Amino acid sequence: MNEPVRLADKLASFDETFAPKIIGYYNGNKIQIGKVKGEFVWHSHPDTDDFFLVLKGRLTIQLRDRDVELEPGDLFVVPRGVEHCPKADEEAHILLIEPEGTPNVGDADAEAAPEVGI
Amino acid sequence: MNEPVRLADKLASFDETFAPKIIGYYNGNKIQIGKVKGEFVWHSHPDTDDFFLVLKGRLTIQLRDRDVELEPGDLFVVPRGVEHCPKADEEAHILLIEPEGTPNVGDADAEAAPEVGI
Repeated sequence: MNEPVRLADKLASFDETFAPKIIGYYNGNKIQIGKVKGEFVWHSHPDTDDFFLVLKGRLTIQLRDRDVELEPGDLFVVPRGVEHCPKADEEAHILLIEPEGTPNVGDADAEAAPEVGI
Repeated sequence: MNEPVRLADKLASFDETFAPKIIGYYNGNKIQIGKVKGEFVWHSHPDTDDFFLVLKGRLTIQLRDRDVELEPGDLFVVPRGVEHCPKADEEAHILLIEPEGTPNVGDADAEAAPEVGI
């Protein structure tokens, strides 16, 4: 990353939900932005924490024992191994950080999304 | 981190500048918030990239060959080994991510700030 990234501009450049886009790298981690609308799949990442920062809208991270409700400017890290399922009734925008090579569906029985940069 | 962190509330809880506070951890990295006013010191981190996301105000990251100007919602990663010096004419608020154990002054000839959580 030689240039700064304006998150709002990058978010305006795509419409897909549940398809995070890589905007940069930090110490072997992918810095991603994503759009959420509806419910994702229940999954966990056995070996990595999952970083969420809400940029716009409201995001619910469902855990097996409770729901974590997030608004813009709220940050939450799902610890490794903890099952979770993000959902948003209205479209929400998020910043995600995951180690390179981590599929966003974790261990869920679904085809891993490709790692896509913009 | 078992609870979400509302960044604005955490930022309202302290006044010091150039004294990042740890608000959580992600895969061995400190997630920190900080306030910048004035000019920091020139430094680099030989072994780690330096993640900056501006939350409020305007931040200039001076590099030896140019200035990178950042506004709220702008993200910039200073690559490892690159000398930089953040500054802000008016107070700016930032989200920082650094590996645990990384002093915020890098290799600068100054006493490293303690790692402080809130």
